[in-house]
Amino acid sequence: MTKAGLSQIYRDYIACLNKQDWPNLGRFVHEEVYYNGEGIGLAGYREMLEGDFRAIPDLYFDIHLLISEPPRVASRLRFNCTPKGTLFGLPINGKRVSFTENVFYEFRDGRIEQVWSVIDKAAIESQLLPDRVKNERSISRQTAAKPRQMKA
Amino acid sequence: MTKAGLSQIYRDYIACLNKQDWPNLGRFVHEEVYYNGEGIGLAGYREMLEGDFRAIPDLYFDIHLLISEPPRVASRLRFNCTPKGTLFGLPINGKRVSFTENVFYEFRDGRIEQVWSVIDKAAIESQLLPDRVKNERSISRQTAAKPRQMKA
Repeated sequence: MTKAGLSQIYRDYIACLNKQDWPNLGRFVHEEVYYNGEGIGLAGYREMLEGDFRAIPDLYFDIHLLISEPPRVASRLRFNCTPKGTLFGLPINGKRVSFTENVFYEFRDGRIEQVWSVIDKAAIESQLLPDRVKNERSISRQTAAKPRQMKA
Repeated sequence: MTKAGLSQIYRDYIACLNKQDWPNLGRFVHEEVYYNGEGIGLAGYREMLEGDFRAIPDLYFDIHLLISEPPRVASRLRFNCTPKGTLFGLPINGKRVSFTENVFYEFRDGRIEQVWSVIDKAAIESQLLPDRVKNERSISRQTAAKPRQMKA
C-alpha cells in the first residue's frame, strides 16, 4: 500500500460516511475493528455511526489535515453542525457548534482495524458557556499567566 | 527533511520537554509558533509548558503513536500523572489520572510552526465521576444501543 493509495482509501471512507452508505462500510472497516482499544466489530462501528447521524442530522466529516504513513493514517476532522439534543452529556438542543476530532487509524489489508480518537469536548463546552473562562488550551492552562481564548 | 529525520527531531523535542530543558526549546519550536490557530510565539509556548509542569509535577510525555509525513507529524501522547489541583476546570487534587492527546505539528526549517491539539478531557472526567455514565466514545454516543466503557 503506497502513501497516496492509503490517503485515497481514507478519503473514500470519509465520502462513504458522508453519504451514510452503510452497506459499503465493510469495504473500508475491518470485521474485527477496535475503537480506542475496545473491539466493537464492524456491526458496532456501523451502529455508532448511525447513532451519530441520528443525533446530528447535518453531520458532515470535513478533513482538515491528513497524514499518511502506511499502514497508518492520522486525520484532523472538522465539524460544524447542529446536534438535536445532548452531545457528550452537553445540552446542545439545536445550537450550531464547531469542534474538531484528531484521530489515528491503522489499516490491515486495506481496511481500518484500529481507531484512536480524541474529540474536542472542551471546545463544545466553551461555545455553550460564554460566561465561563473558555480556554482549555494547554494541559494545565489554569496556571498560565494570560488565559488564551479558544478558537473554535 | 526526510521522514525518519523529522521523526527523530520530534523525539528529541519530546525529550526536551521531559527534561524541562527550556533554554533549548527554541531549537525545536519556531519563534512565530501557532497553537490551535493562535499565534502565541515561542515565549508563550514556553510559558504554557512551564505552567503544565507546575500544575502536574510528575508530567511525562509518552509517545504512543507517531506518524511522519514531512513537513508534518502526528503524535498520540499518553499521560499518567497526578495533577495537584484543577485540570481543565476539573478537581483532580492529586488523584492519579490517565489520558491522551492527539496532536498534529507542522514544521518549517526543522522547527514546529503550527500545533493542532486535542486533549481527551472526557477521559479525565470519566475517572473522576465513577457513578456517571463514563462513555464519551462516539460523536453522539448517547443514542448508541449499548454504551461502551471508556478505556483510559
